[in-house]
Amino acid sequence: MQKSSMSRRRFLQSTGTAAIWLPTSVRGYSANEVQALYIDGEMQGEVSKWELDTPSLCVDLDLLEENIAKMQETLSANGIASRPHAKTHKTPIIAQMQLDAGSVGICTAKVSEAEVMFQNGIDRILMTTTNVTPTKIRRAMKLRQRCPGFIQATDSTVNANLLSQAASTMNITADVVVDIDPGGHRTGITPGQSALELAKLIDQLPGLNLRGLLCYDGGSQHVKGFEQRKSQTLERLVAATETYDLFFRGGLSTEIFSGGGTGTYNIDHETRGLTDVQVGSYVFMDSQYMDIGGESNSEIYSDFQTSLTILSTVLNDQYEGRATTDAGAKACTINKPWARIKGESGMSFSSGSDEFGTIRYEKEASRTYKVGDKVELIVSHCDPVVNLYNHMYAIRGDRVEAVWQIAARGMSA
Amino acid sequence: MQKSSMSRRRFLQSTGTAAIWLPTSVRGYSANEVQALYIDGEMQGEVSKWELDTPSLCVDLDLLEENIAKMQETLSANGIASRPHAKTHKTPIIAQMQLDAGSVGICTAKVSEAEVMFQNGIDRILMTTTNVTPTKIRRAMKLRQRCPGFIQATDSTVNANLLSQAASTMNITADVVVDIDPGGHRTGITPGQSALELAKLIDQLPGLNLRGLLCYDGGSQHVKGFEQRKSQTLERLVAATETYDLFFRGGLSTEIFSGGGTGTYNIDHETRGLTDVQVGSYVFMDSQYMDIGGESNSEIYSDFQTSLTILSTVLNDQYEGRATTDAGAKACTINKPWARIKGESGMSFSSGSDEFGTIRYEKEASRTYKVGDKVELIVSHCDPVVNLYNHMYAIRGDRVEAVWQIAARGMSA
Repeated sequence: MQKSSMSRRRFLQSTGTAAIWLPTSVRGYSANEVQALYIDGEMQGEVSKWELDTPSLCVDLDLLEENIAKMQETLSANGIASRPHAKTHKTPIIAQMQLDAGSVGICTAKVSEAEVMFQNGIDRILMTTTNVTPTKIRRAMKLRQRCPGFIQATDSTVNANLLSQAASTMNITADVVVDIDPGGHRTGITPGQSALELAKLIDQLPGLNLRGLLCYDGGSQHVKGFEQRKSQTLERLVAATETYDLFFRGGLSTEIFSGGGTGTYNIDHETRGLTDVQVGSYVFMDSQYMDIGGESNSEIYSDFQTSLTILSTVLNDQYEGRATTDAGAKACTINKPWARIKGESGMSFSSGSDEFGTIRYEKEASRTYKVGDKVELIVSHCDPVVNLYNHMYAIRGDRVEAVWQIAARGMSA
Repeated sequence: MQKSSMSRRRFLQSTGTAAIWLPTSVRGYSANEVQALYIDGEMQGEVSKWELDTPSLCVDLDLLEENIAKMQETLSANGIASRPHAKTHKTPIIAQMQLDAGSVGICTAKVSEAEVMFQNGIDRILMTTTNVTPTKIRRAMKLRQRCPGFIQATDSTVNANLLSQAASTMNITADVVVDIDPGGHRTGITPGQSALELAKLIDQLPGLNLRGLLCYDGGSQHVKGFEQRKSQTLERLVAATETYDLFFRGGLSTEIFSGGGTGTYNIDHETRGLTDVQVGSYVFMDSQYMDIGGESNSEIYSDFQTSLTILSTVLNDQYEGRATTDAGAKACTINKPWARIKGESGMSFSSGSDEFGTIRYEKEASRTYKVGDKVELIVSHCDPVVNLYNHMYAIRGDRVEAVWQIAARGMSA
């Protein structure tokens, strides 16, 4: 079906079972109007996603639920837990869906994200970044005071001492894990003796409770080709496993050994000792992950489905071989590979302009667009794209079922 | 002075004239705490920018004011007006500063931006993008109803007819300009006869009031080298000037002929007929514009000063030749050239990771950083960076003078 013919439909109840959408008024809905229709968790009217003002961020609920279920099934079958990273979706209701499906907790990258998640009812949070300033340490400790399920990472003896002082001052015990560098030297302490010394210090310091370690190998997640990805990440995690052994032999907690992600979710259980995978992008997927290839499909990483899309409208069709849309870098980011037009072939999309997207037709394009037509885009890189929007529309079929606040949007501090 | 030694200072009134900052508590301020201190347009306490939680977006008020004054002086001397583009700053108070300095109006790229600007007291708005959907046309007409200074672009006869119908239905007269394609084929109608026919149609249609034309040559703004930039943009604007002549000879309004930007602000007056320049980035500047070279300085475009910076904190200093900060792609974007560390040399910064920035030391780095040190970054590309933050801190010297809401942040629809 051509997208343009799906615009502006009206929901008509037929026999009480099947739902039929028919074209309706030409009004469409602004973001404010759709939000006004969403009261107490229920849409008070029938709105098709094709009636939404654009650019708008949409998540397909069926695909999202399938992704969450498949991840949980796979990890469970492999004898490992999931601790999904909320930096991807920044949306408490998705975090709750992940916990409801069996995740042991969620991760956050920033203390502000953790605060927002807790304010929205999420109470098992592992903050994977070290808090180094007095402001952030104070906030993390205040959060820990209210949220017994809050755990934070640390990667130096200086920092562990600061955490201990802060916790002692507040008369609390703070749960911490040691962040281990997988070799990228971005964050974390060097595995082996340095990490062991830090763990021993934490174990002795007042106010701190050692819970184990984490080692996030971000550099392996997007390695193309399943076998290359597998060999690289397993090799890079060896030092972390050896550190895990040192902790274990030293009588230190190894209750948590967290690491891995969407690119290695079906590999990480082979890292001995690893307890849970910090999967993030699997809920949405994106063109960056599609291109890495999977175990069963070397061309496209199709283990999870592309649930997250941006709806955009064609603004100009006057020039040969191209069309201009209303979704540019401020709606799509400039991550590569570029966003892809869902369901179409023989054309490319780019968002190099701040305000405008560009469609270029190649030979045998599956269709062309007219001004006003809607385009649905599979996002380039889901994390920073989500961070551009205040809310996402949760879609079932074509129907807007909910308007979800991206409550931790912009929470980079 | 090393930045680390400037952290956490306290403002002490001395003789009533000079302001001295001294180190104070180690607490620092979270974003919420600073905002709570900003009541009725006045800071109720003394906060140094080095006490701000990071990443945070800061604008240096002295430099911002100098940039606005210099632009206005130069354009006035060249006999041309400014109509600054608010897509850059998305901040009503900066739009007001521009109008107060003598700008004839502001531009917006989206109807949602225009609505927010009007809600915040800005009432001379040229929307440079064509509204093509019923939702957006309706919103634009409602805005026009309340805001007599609202003008919108159109670039096709179909669209002009839709605007006419909408205006007639609402019993209003809508001001429009014809958007002319400078050759990039992104938006606008082909100059010459096509544009003339459209202008004639607008002039006859009920409910529409032709005000002139616009031609934004985005492709010339970042051409490196002043002479190359000048020759390219003047050449590309010839067809628009010829269209201006056609309008004029046809008895059609040429009251507005808007175009140009920060890269061509001291060239655009040579385009015959042009009435005003849609300058945007000059208020903030960024590393992209620094690299294009200016008329007086072929290496660095130093006509305007870098008023916009991101403050970031070093999180990890454990590895040779590098440090990790808390400002990644979600705080800086991935635009190139990368953000630059203000006041330092012999080191680079990159924000390729979503959550983390990377400093790499080269030979003879001007300094090295310790965990907790602050880094001040000149932004890569100001427009999309501003679009990541809910507010910016307005700084005078080192003192936080105001907290400005970026009211049109995320207004991409």
